[in-house]
Amino acid sequence: MLIIGGREAKRHSPKILERFVALCRASERSPCIGVVTTASADGEAAFRTYRDAFAPLGMAAKALDLADRRQADLPEYARALSAMAGVFFSGGDQLRITSTLGGTRFHQALLAQRELGLVIAGTSAGASMMSDVMIVGGADEREPARNTVHLAAGMGFWPGSVIDQHFSQRGRIGRLLAALAQNPEILAIGIDEDTAIELQARPPTFTVIGTNTVTVLDGRAITATNASESSPDQPLALVGVQLHVLAPGWGYDYQRRLPLSPAVESWLPF
Amino acid sequence: MLIIGGREAKRHSPKILERFVALCRASERSPCIGVVTTASADGEAAFRTYRDAFAPLGMAAKALDLADRRQADLPEYARALSAMAGVFFSGGDQLRITSTLGGTRFHQALLAQRELGLVIAGTSAGASMMSDVMIVGGADEREPARNTVHLAAGMGFWPGSVIDQHFSQRGRIGRLLAALAQNPEILAIGIDEDTAIELQARPPTFTVIGTNTVTVLDGRAITATNASESSPDQPLALVGVQLHVLAPGWGYDYQRRLPLSPAVESWLPF
Repeated sequence: MLIIGGREAKRHSPKILERFVALCRASERSPCIGVVTTASADGEAAFRTYRDAFAPLGMAAKALDLADRRQADLPEYARALSAMAGVFFSGGDQLRITSTLGGTRFHQALLAQRELGLVIAGTSAGASMMSDVMIVGGADEREPARNTVHLAAGMGFWPGSVIDQHFSQRGRIGRLLAALAQNPEILAIGIDEDTAIELQARPPTFTVIGTNTVTVLDGRAITATNASESSPDQPLALVGVQLHVLAPGWGYDYQRRLPLSPAVESWLPF
Repeated sequence: MLIIGGREAKRHSPKILERFVALCRASERSPCIGVVTTASADGEAAFRTYRDAFAPLGMAAKALDLADRRQADLPEYARALSAMAGVFFSGGDQLRITSTLGGTRFHQALLAQRELGLVIAGTSAGASMMSDVMIVGGADEREPARNTVHLAAGMGFWPGSVIDQHFSQRGRIGRLLAALAQNPEILAIGIDEDTAIELQARPPTFTVIGTNTVTVLDGRAITATNASESSPDQPLALVGVQLHVLAPGWGYDYQRRLPLSPAVESWLPF
């Protein structure tokens, strides 16, 4: 899986899209990808953007323009996935993805095909929906408070995490901390623009690729917070958050919660 | 000392300014304060703003409109401090403060009078200059990189720290992390708008007052960073930063580096 913080380069040196194509090729499935534009207000425009970005990389793209739940339950879309190497979720509104696709036949087919090698990627809204606790929206450039973040159930492609995107560029650490304060067990990940994490199940690690950074907030060592007794607009206190900033090439073991420097994880399949 | 993150309330319920006045009264020195407007582009306007804010609180304000080093070396300004309970540094450009006042007779008089009870407060630029390593400027809403922050020597009122202001409101954690990566020993403090820390030497603690939060970044447990081998515009990696978000009423022991919940530090002189 490839989880992208939005605004990834599409023309000049599109490292992240290139990596997606390489992963799709390595899957040895049909050399074709699907672009799910459900999140986008203008799905056709979003599809054209990605079709034109993937074409020079030698990868054909098909539109998976699922607009409502009835369509997402049709067997042909689920079936189409088995003839694809990867699926790419465009940006927009993550609630459109979960409310349209959550629990449908298409959603189930994605989970099933992933076990058979299907590569799943998503950018911006397509990144947020990957976790099981999903950030729907919230305030940028604010201190953490319960009402600075709105949460909903995500698509569960990466359980145990909560993901935010456009992270440094929009000043979003406050809202990610607010999500963390409400349940410190969750692993909070903030992904910058033109930056992605490449996630694998075995070993349970991810690697940072792209241009900027990925911020990991580990709340398990939080010793005190006022999250339960504070009112929604009161500033939150959090004591003892572990913060890691990972640059491209750095990795993270999300089971043992250990950052991996580029040297340590050079055994990863780059 | 009172270190304020900028944009403190001046008319309706000006909690932070009220606290400054209360501290000045408690000093039992002459009931008059000086406003140092050296940082401000329009010093006269800055003085009027604070004079008018302090007047309803029953505190007379005098302008300390030091514009150049020659003036800052005149004995009358140093002498004036001994007839004041407190000094308030307005916002603007922190380099104006350090380049005009650093090492002058006025600076020395501030340090000497502080030992005799003078209360020193500063907001925005007047907060940044308090530390010995001072953030001059940098990029908002950016991931940490060596060129996202510019540092200079501050006024040294609080050694061992680096202070950033307008913190959550301008998305400044990236530049504060960049300052921290270069020497993890320093204590990095981000103060939100309309929020302040009230600092005391004995015990070596501060308390958060005002509306929003104070972020403490403790880098002593950093186990890995690429700060020395990265180029100025490369994203920085930092592994193992301790992050605390402190809400009003919470405190921090900056010698032992321990956050204090409101209950624990209720013995503090509120």
